[in-house]
Amino acid sequence: MSKRKKMEKLSIVKIGGNIIEDDASLAAFLKLFSNLEGKKILVHGGGKRATAMATKLGITSKIVNGRRITNAETLEVITMVYGGLVNKNLVAKLQALQIDAIGLTGADVNSITSKKRSIKEIDYGFVGDVKEVASNSIDTLIQADFTPVFCAITHDGKGQLLNTNADTIASQIAVGMSKIYKTSVYYCFELNGVLKDFNDKKSVIKRIHFENYQQLLKEGIITDGMIPKLDNCFDALNKGVHKVHIGNTAMFTEENELFTTIIL
Amino acid sequence: MSKRKKMEKLSIVKIGGNIIEDDASLAAFLKLFSNLEGKKILVHGGGKRATAMATKLGITSKIVNGRRITNAETLEVITMVYGGLVNKNLVAKLQALQIDAIGLTGADVNSITSKKRSIKEIDYGFVGDVKEVASNSIDTLIQADFTPVFCAITHDGKGQLLNTNADTIASQIAVGMSKIYKTSVYYCFELNGVLKDFNDKKSVIKRIHFENYQQLLKEGIITDGMIPKLDNCFDALNKGVHKVHIGNTAMFTEENELFTTIIL
Repeated sequence: MSKRKKMEKLSIVKIGGNIIEDDASLAAFLKLFSNLEGKKILVHGGGKRATAMATKLGITSKIVNGRRITNAETLEVITMVYGGLVNKNLVAKLQALQIDAIGLTGADVNSITSKKRSIKEIDYGFVGDVKEVASNSIDTLIQADFTPVFCAITHDGKGQLLNTNADTIASQIAVGMSKIYKTSVYYCFELNGVLKDFNDKKSVIKRIHFENYQQLLKEGIITDGMIPKLDNCFDALNKGVHKVHIGNTAMFTEENELFTTIIL
Repeated sequence: MSKRKKMEKLSIVKIGGNIIEDDASLAAFLKLFSNLEGKKILVHGGGKRATAMATKLGITSKIVNGRRITNAETLEVITMVYGGLVNKNLVAKLQALQIDAIGLTGADVNSITSKKRSIKEIDYGFVGDVKEVASNSIDTLIQADFTPVFCAITHDGKGQLLNTNADTIASQIAVGMSKIYKTSVYYCFELNGVLKDFNDKKSVIKRIHFENYQQLLKEGIITDGMIPKLDNCFDALNKGVHKVHIGNTAMFTEENELFTTIIL
């Protein structure tokens, strides 16, 4: 029996703004998440709410190439909304479902250190690219039966918080934890999975592995925003993650089989 | 040798808005806190910043009997400012000082459960009175060499976050942890300690115990806002806390002896 087979499972679930924004969707998801067996970690974004709060405060945040330019004021809003409002309400709601949640940024227990993105063509501001995941510290929390809830904030270890993409945080945590666990990542978004035909919501590609991915790219079936997402998935798989799943929250119900699984 | 003598020390330090608001004061305090020997917990408020943020957002929060009336909008601001902005920046700054901090509300690891204050003459809104401190869960974090940083937010265990006075949180944590540790509470505020003469900043009463407290009350030396503060201290001491100290942050410097110690 290989070492991997003996490893305990760990699920890393990432939810986006569409679930967080809607009270009913969020309640339904949290119930499913609380029933998910085994050790688990939740990762969340919260983009729309941060944008709304920034607008209320008269702060305009530019978005270039799909990434928010994070000036000092925008970072404050992100810290308030992601690290405070969204994260702590998720924790309180999970506690009500008997999940002993603990809300974290990458600064807490020094869990995720990142490096401020260097200025090339664009100055992204206070944006951090993940440098290191403190898998042992995160595991200390998991071993104590706490369920970590990460927001999309990291730190540079020198006192500076940094904004980091939530998808990246999920995959980097998974990579880091795959030394200790058999890790699966679940990306929850609004669609049923990766679609063959964008106009047919049921045309889910159930399994993507490296060979058919090349074919799907060549045929132009996978395009645009899905390419970096899938590249990111394969990168995580190459670094030890066991499986990546993409779909909506229904993938946590037993009946549903309409989601995409990505394997090497 | 009594059981108490064998107990390890735990310091619970509470800082108020005046330190948090001022970058230089905060940096100086965090350096002193990081050098404080033994296990420790930080508790913070952040009132002025929350008020400023509420004003920016056009939310007016009433204060009755020195307590903020916490409507749903005010609670959101408190969750953002205390739980996000202030707490996570403190954690990042402590990490830079090699303190493995972890930022918490009472919802995290179910650490502090409270009960929404019942409506009598005044409806305080989303304000919680502490019901239970999960000392074992907090100790799990301390034993892992993490330093908890608590903001002034608790939860009711049913999914609702609640606003709770930071002084009370500090003393309740101390009471809860005194089953496991020899606990000392340090209340940092702008004065050197409890003063004999409010106009003489150096007239610090160095030692208050139950007998001279009664005398100080009778003589009218201790009045107004200091009475509930000291009543709260004696309550904590009666429930197992070892010592309470009141003073400014200079009490963490070795030379300084100008602060008030309260014992039974």
